[in-house]
Amino acid sequence: MDTKGFYQPVTAEILEALQRIAGPGAVLTDPEKLEAYSHDETDAREYGRMPEAVVLPRNTAEVAEIVKLANREKIPITPRGAGSGLSGGAIPEYGGIVLSLERMNRLLELDEENMVAVAETGMVTNDFARAVEERGLFFAGYPMSLQTCLLGGNIAENAGGGKAVKYGVTGRYILGLELVTPRGDIVELGGKILKDVSGYDLKSLVIGSEGTLGIVTKAIIRLIGYPADKSDLLVLFKTPQEAINLVPLILSRGLTPTSIEFMDRLSIVTSCRYLNESLPYENAGAMLLIELDGVNPGQIERDLIETGKLCESRGALEVYVAEDRNNIERIWNVRRNIAEAFKVFSPVQSVEDIVVPISRIPFMISELERLGKKYGMSIPCYGHAGDGNLHATLVKESAMGEAEWKRNEAACLAELYRITAGAGGKISGEHGIGIKRREHLKSLISPAELELMQGIKQAWDPNNIMNPGKIFNIP
Amino acid sequence: MDTKGFYQPVTAEILEALQRIAGPGAVLTDPEKLEAYSHDETDAREYGRMPEAVVLPRNTAEVAEIVKLANREKIPITPRGAGSGLSGGAIPEYGGIVLSLERMNRLLELDEENMVAVAETGMVTNDFARAVEERGLFFAGYPMSLQTCLLGGNIAENAGGGKAVKYGVTGRYILGLELVTPRGDIVELGGKILKDVSGYDLKSLVIGSEGTLGIVTKAIIRLIGYPADKSDLLVLFKTPQEAINLVPLILSRGLTPTSIEFMDRLSIVTSCRYLNESLPYENAGAMLLIELDGVNPGQIERDLIETGKLCESRGALEVYVAEDRNNIERIWNVRRNIAEAFKVFSPVQSVEDIVVPISRIPFMISELERLGKKYGMSIPCYGHAGDGNLHATLVKESAMGEAEWKRNEAACLAELYRITAGAGGKISGEHGIGIKRREHLKSLISPAELELMQGIKQAWDPNNIMNPGKIFNIP
Repeated sequence: MDTKGFYQPVTAEILEALQRIAGPGAVLTDPEKLEAYSHDETDAREYGRMPEAVVLPRNTAEVAEIVKLANREKIPITPRGAGSGLSGGAIPEYGGIVLSLERMNRLLELDEENMVAVAETGMVTNDFARAVEERGLFFAGYPMSLQTCLLGGNIAENAGGGKAVKYGVTGRYILGLELVTPRGDIVELGGKILKDVSGYDLKSLVIGSEGTLGIVTKAIIRLIGYPADKSDLLVLFKTPQEAINLVPLILSRGLTPTSIEFMDRLSIVTSCRYLNESLPYENAGAMLLIELDGVNPGQIERDLIETGKLCESRGALEVYVAEDRNNIERIWNVRRNIAEAFKVFSPVQSVEDIVVPISRIPFMISELERLGKKYGMSIPCYGHAGDGNLHATLVKESAMGEAEWKRNEAACLAELYRITAGAGGKISGEHGIGIKRREHLKSLISPAELELMQGIKQAWDPNNIMNPGKIFNIP
Repeated sequence: MDTKGFYQPVTAEILEALQRIAGPGAVLTDPEKLEAYSHDETDAREYGRMPEAVVLPRNTAEVAEIVKLANREKIPITPRGAGSGLSGGAIPEYGGIVLSLERMNRLLELDEENMVAVAETGMVTNDFARAVEERGLFFAGYPMSLQTCLLGGNIAENAGGGKAVKYGVTGRYILGLELVTPRGDIVELGGKILKDVSGYDLKSLVIGSEGTLGIVTKAIIRLIGYPADKSDLLVLFKTPQEAINLVPLILSRGLTPTSIEFMDRLSIVTSCRYLNESLPYENAGAMLLIELDGVNPGQIERDLIETGKLCESRGALEVYVAEDRNNIERIWNVRRNIAEAFKVFSPVQSVEDIVVPISRIPFMISELERLGKKYGMSIPCYGHAGDGNLHATLVKESAMGEAEWKRNEAACLAELYRITAGAGGKISGEHGIGIKRREHLKSLISPAELELMQGIKQAWDPNNIMNPGKIFNIP
């Protein structure tokens, strides 16, 4: 399909119509302002693309009007949260209109009796988490980027995060959605209810669909009681392999930590350097950061001791217990800043997001070492080992030329993804396919599965205006 | 659409082709044998419909061949588990072929390291649950009918059950599916992985789609550690309203019981009579059956005491603690047999499955009393109060004539469903829409939402051969 020929440009008339809908100040066309909406956290040089206009609606009715206009005029429309994504999902690949949710950021309701909150999806995740925490409630489904990301982005990507081992990912906490469909209809999916088989589960289909099936404008979010107590173990190992071997062992003992985060030496060193922080990692080749939380301090203590002993019995160099908030926060800060640190010190890189069965993590770690040697690059690895999700990061060494790097990166990714699929895994656990992994997805799933996805997209969005080019192209 | 004119009959040639695929003994045409496949647990007189043939494949390849044949020849095909459904999902409304999964009943793999099992979907749920329990593992997502239902039926309906308050419904434990699509392709969705955003979440879309989007032939099922300890409270109240008022109170205290089951007096009396059992219900208008389980007996004890005290402080007549397996089993047996007991003593009835926000349960109970008076019928009520799911059951009194009953039943259901929707609820929490609630669903959801569902169905099943007429008709 020659999409460029199919889509229509954003003309002066279209801009006027957008201003009539959202107000004069809500339509941006100044190239300097548009630039901020042309990329996400993937490499802007490779994936960035300028929108023709950015519109900042204030409410669902405006969103619906804008979508109707885009659908009628065949203009691509790209929904956008904070732009903190890692696969290009919020980038306007075919130009057109970027619809930013940033002004729709209100907490609409905090219903303590039903333990749910209703929020607009332009709300910053951290603002939401703090607002419910004030009432002793907890939003367990948030990702590592919570300080910047918006709820809408979490839903579009079905974001995971550091607490997914125990609490699961974003989708588990989304009870209902308000969706503006690609035709501009407003539909309410789900509700303040805990079970529902009244027709197809469209809510779950929309979650993780990367904004290709419509724009989520509100969410009904399930809350749980705030886990009053927590405690962390920082466990040092000589080699990544020894560290990662512990993960299936811990989980198969029936221990349910909130998190089991893995960091190899290069990840720790880079983040500590970036933060000017020091962790006791002198002889360590890798670390596990294990958090336990709950409402029962005695139980946490018992699980902590059992986990620590298990690590010691399997060759851990040191087991540190961090029980005060300050120390816990310091360690987590190192973990949270790894991606940012690599971006600063090694700007040419590719953050990966593979997910495999727990038992295959040790195999994947050894394969990553092999691939790094084969393709002449560093592949530091960190991530949510407790749910099999590894952020292996391909990093360009300064000695390697740009052309050689591009060839090696492409070949290494293709091989890594094939190995991942062969191990029963998938190429994205929480960052999404977006633009970045689109061609890889196509080569890894069956044509029949791809057709099922495309069939849904074409039925819901016959003009292919809603975030086109993400996950797959329409033939 | 004149579906009758569109579909083709099962001719002698088609029967021969089916026999070539599945073997001569695997194709049933004897009317006496077909009768068993003509109904489910809804009223056979009202919803029953004879298939033209029943086929019993042994493996996925045979299922795919049968579906390809049906799709090519435009013959409706109705997948079937145990036929224990309560909305007509397994009934061959347009005749054609019933494809029964009963011979595909093997546990294929028990992967203890990843805590998952892989099973064919014709396996009886209880057989599956027992097989994993032998290894200390627990399938938490099963429904009350586990002794007869098949895994495939649970998945098709996204079945709930008595443990959903703490553990959620079937879908939470389904990590992967093997699906034969309406075109006869075999696709693998999900896997032994805990997170996945590699394209649309087709697995969640298929779960609960009542066999209209394909036939699920295998499932990868997540297991958890077997909760070694449990304890139950049986709490008696003077009125249903007093009992049900406790539900939001218990949950908002942060207590997480495994189950909070509600039974009104008529439900208890009827089930006890059926079982020749006696519970201490002399003065009780309703009971709550509250179960707590876990790995920490001390915690269970503390939660049990707190829950009991809360009930006493809110007017409970009696709080009985049942800690031995024998007593727990006796009480649960009464709960499990309510539906069966009503069927025996009051065969003309309608088991409902509404689900509302927890805080609206008291309102719904009072509305059910009002509706019973208004329409001259008993509406005993029981169900999974802890997740807002009530099995109100419209029961015909012997004095009422058949024609008047039909009129009153229809009017009462329409009113009940409108009230449920108005309270932020849905008309089915775990039994599905099937044939029985199809017209009601159409009148309660927006045309835009219905079109989204129908769009998916038409994209996946352009000949509308896969379990047609369930959930909605295709225009």
